[in-house]
Amino acid sequence: MQNFEFLSPTKIIFGKGTEEKVGAETKKYSDKVLLHYGGGSIKKSGLYDRIVKSLKDAGVEYIELPGVLPNPRLGLVNEGIKLCRENGIKFILAVGGGSVIDSSKAIAVGVPYPGDVWDFFTGAAVAKEALPVGVVLTFPAAGSEASKSCVITKEEGLLKRGHNTQLNRPVFAIMNPELSFTLPPYQTAAGVVDIMAHMMERYFTNETYVDYTDRLTEAALKSVIDNARIVMKEPENYNARAEIMWAGTIAHNDFLETGRIPDFASHNIEHELSAKYDMTHGAGLAIIFPAWMKYVYKGKLNKFVQFATRVWNVDMNYDEPERTALEGIRRMEEFFKEIGLPVRLKDADIGEDGIAEMTEKCKLPNGDTLGNFVRLNRKDIENVFRLAL
Amino acid sequence: MQNFEFLSPTKIIFGKGTEEKVGAETKKYSDKVLLHYGGGSIKKSGLYDRIVKSLKDAGVEYIELPGVLPNPRLGLVNEGIKLCRENGIKFILAVGGGSVIDSSKAIAVGVPYPGDVWDFFTGAAVAKEALPVGVVLTFPAAGSEASKSCVITKEEGLLKRGHNTQLNRPVFAIMNPELSFTLPPYQTAAGVVDIMAHMMERYFTNETYVDYTDRLTEAALKSVIDNARIVMKEPENYNARAEIMWAGTIAHNDFLETGRIPDFASHNIEHELSAKYDMTHGAGLAIIFPAWMKYVYKGKLNKFVQFATRVWNVDMNYDEPERTALEGIRRMEEFFKEIGLPVRLKDADIGEDGIAEMTEKCKLPNGDTLGNFVRLNRKDIENVFRLAL
Repeated sequence: MQNFEFLSPTKIIFGKGTEEKVGAETKKYSDKVLLHYGGGSIKKSGLYDRIVKSLKDAGVEYIELPGVLPNPRLGLVNEGIKLCRENGIKFILAVGGGSVIDSSKAIAVGVPYPGDVWDFFTGAAVAKEALPVGVVLTFPAAGSEASKSCVITKEEGLLKRGHNTQLNRPVFAIMNPELSFTLPPYQTAAGVVDIMAHMMERYFTNETYVDYTDRLTEAALKSVIDNARIVMKEPENYNARAEIMWAGTIAHNDFLETGRIPDFASHNIEHELSAKYDMTHGAGLAIIFPAWMKYVYKGKLNKFVQFATRVWNVDMNYDEPERTALEGIRRMEEFFKEIGLPVRLKDADIGEDGIAEMTEKCKLPNGDTLGNFVRLNRKDIENVFRLAL
Repeated sequence: MQNFEFLSPTKIIFGKGTEEKVGAETKKYSDKVLLHYGGGSIKKSGLYDRIVKSLKDAGVEYIELPGVLPNPRLGLVNEGIKLCRENGIKFILAVGGGSVIDSSKAIAVGVPYPGDVWDFFTGAAVAKEALPVGVVLTFPAAGSEASKSCVITKEEGLLKRGHNTQLNRPVFAIMNPELSFTLPPYQTAAGVVDIMAHMMERYFTNETYVDYTDRLTEAALKSVIDNARIVMKEPENYNARAEIMWAGTIAHNDFLETGRIPDFASHNIEHELSAKYDMTHGAGLAIIFPAWMKYVYKGKLNKFVQFATRVWNVDMNYDEPERTALEGIRRMEEFFKEIGLPVRLKDADIGEDGIAEMTEKCKLPNGDTLGNFVRLNRKDIENVFRLAL
C-alpha cells in the first residue's frame, strides 16, 4: 500500500427535495452568484423554477449563463470568466451533470487568474486559488460533484484536456435522485459506465495489499451493476437511482484510490474518441474499456481473475485461469450491451479512418507512455483502438 | 434509503513516516498547542521525541498534558481546559488512540464554553464552537480520528457518556500503521472488534434499499477479518496493519451510515460494562454483540441471513434460514475467540452481580428504549446482559 493524503471536504446534501436547500446553502458563501447550466431540460422539468425560487427566498442574486454542451467548451468558460469579473461574482452555482460542473470549475479557477485559463489544462500554470463552486446534480456519471477533476475541450483542434487540483472540489453538492428520473435510457446507461470506469481505473493497479479498497470497489461495482439493471427497466425507481447516484460520487472523489496508483489509460484514450466524434463519454468508455482489457490482461492475469470472480461471479477455472479472466471481460461487455450501449466502434458507426489522428493526439502523461497498470506507447494505443473496431 | 447530509472534512495523512509532518501541519493552525497524550508508551517507542522535534522544527510551542487513561476521565478534561485558558492555547494535538483523541475533543469544546463541559454530555447544552484538534493516531479502534463522536467518563458515579457533534471532527489525522506494531495482541484484537462493531451498528438497520452501503460494509468487514488474522500472527505486517487502520477510520466517520438509521444499542450497553469494570471497550463489545444478536435475530431474520452469507460465507440453508443466521453469529463469536477475546462475561470473570446496576444506569435515548433496529426496554437490556453471562 502506498502512502496517501485524502481530503474530500464537499458537503453532500442527499435525497428527495434537497434542491430546495440550494438558496440557504449558497447564501453561506455569497449574495450574488453565476447560475450556470445547460439547455432547456432543467426548465422543462421545473427544476430551474425551484432553484430560482430558493435563491430568491434566500436573498441571493444571480446572473445566468446557460448553454453548456456535453464535452464542455473553452469558449463558454471564457465567457463565464468575463461575466464573473464584470459583475463582481464570487460564487458559481452549477445545475446539471458533469459538463456543467466541469465548466463551472474551469470558470472558478479562471476568474482570479490573470492569464489564459487554458494554461491550467496544458500544465503551463498551476492554479493557486479558485472561487467556490456549489452543485445541484441532475445526472450521476462524471462524479465531478465531489472530485478534483475537470475536463474541458478547446474548440481549436478539438483538444480535450483535464485539470486536476484540490481547488476543484465543490463546497457542496445537492443530490436528489428524483432529478435523474427523466434521463433518457442511453444517458442513464452511459452514466453507469462512466461510474464503473472511475472505479475500474483505480482497481486495475500494480499496487498489492490494497485488499480493503479492492473489496470496497468490487462491492461498489456489484451494487451499481445490480441497480443499473433495475433502473433500465424502472426509470422512476427512487432507491435504485439513489444507489447509483451516491456510488457515482464516491467512484471519483478519490476515496477508492487511497493507497493505490490508478491507471486512467482508458479514460485518456476515450477522451480522443469523444472529442473527435462528440460522443457521450460513458458510451465511448463502453467501447474502449473492453478493448483495453483484452489488450493488457495477459500480463496481469491475477487481477483480471480477481475481477472476474469477485465482481462478475465467474467460477474460478483453476486449470486455465485465463478462461476465468476472459469470461469476466465478456460478462462486462454483455452487461454494457444489455443496457443499450455500443461496445465496438462500428456499433457507433465509426471506422478506422480516425484512428491514426486520435492516436497521434493522445496525451502521454508519462513522457512517452500512457497509463500505470500497463504503460502504453503510441503503438499500443493504436492497437487498443484497432481492437475496438 | 433515507435523505442524508455527509461531511467528513478531516485531512488524512496516511503511511510510513507521516508523523514527521505533524509540525508543519500543526503550524497551519497555531504556533502554540496543547500536546495531549497517555502514558509512557509513546516515549518508550521514540514517537514522543519525533513529534516534539517536528513541532520544534516548525516553530510550534507546546504545553504538555499527559496521563489520559483508557475510558478517559472528566477530571483530566477539566485540567486540559484550564491549561488551555491559562496559556492562551487554541489548538489541541492528540497523540494516541481513541481515549486521547476523545479527551482532546472534550477539551476543545470545553475551552470556549463558559459553563461545565459535562453539559454537552448530558445534553444540557449544545456546543457552538470548538478549538481545532489534530491527531497522530497510534491505535486503530475508536475511529475518533475522523468521527464526530467523543466519549468521556465522569468519575462520580462512573457515568460514561457520549457527545456527538460535527465540531468534534479533527482537522487532520496523521496515520502511520507502523505506530501500531507494538500494540499488545489483546489491544489489537479489541481494536478490531471496535472497528467491526462500528460497522455492524450501522449495518443492522431497518432501512431497506441501502444496497450500496450494505455491500461496502460487508466488504469492509471481510477485509478487517482477513487482515486481523494476519496481524495476530505477524504484528509487524505493515500492509495488514494499514488495511485495519484505514478501515477503522471509515468505519466511524459516518460514510457507512449514509442513507440509514443506525442502531448503537450494543455500544451503549457495553459502555456500562466498561465504565463499571474499566474494561477495554472492544473486549466488552466482543461479549455484548453476540448476546445482542442472539436476543434480536428472530424478528430480523433476513438481515442476519444476509450477514451470515455475505460476511461469513455461510452457505444458505433455504429450508431453514434460521440456521444460516445462527451459523453467522457463531462464526463471528468463534472469530472473536480466535483473536483472543472474551465472548462471555464469565470469560472476563464477571458474574451477574452488576447486571441490575448496569441495566439501571443504561441511557435510553429514545425515552424508554435503546436502539433502532430493535428497540430495547430495560428488561430487554437486562436480558442481553444475562445472555452474555
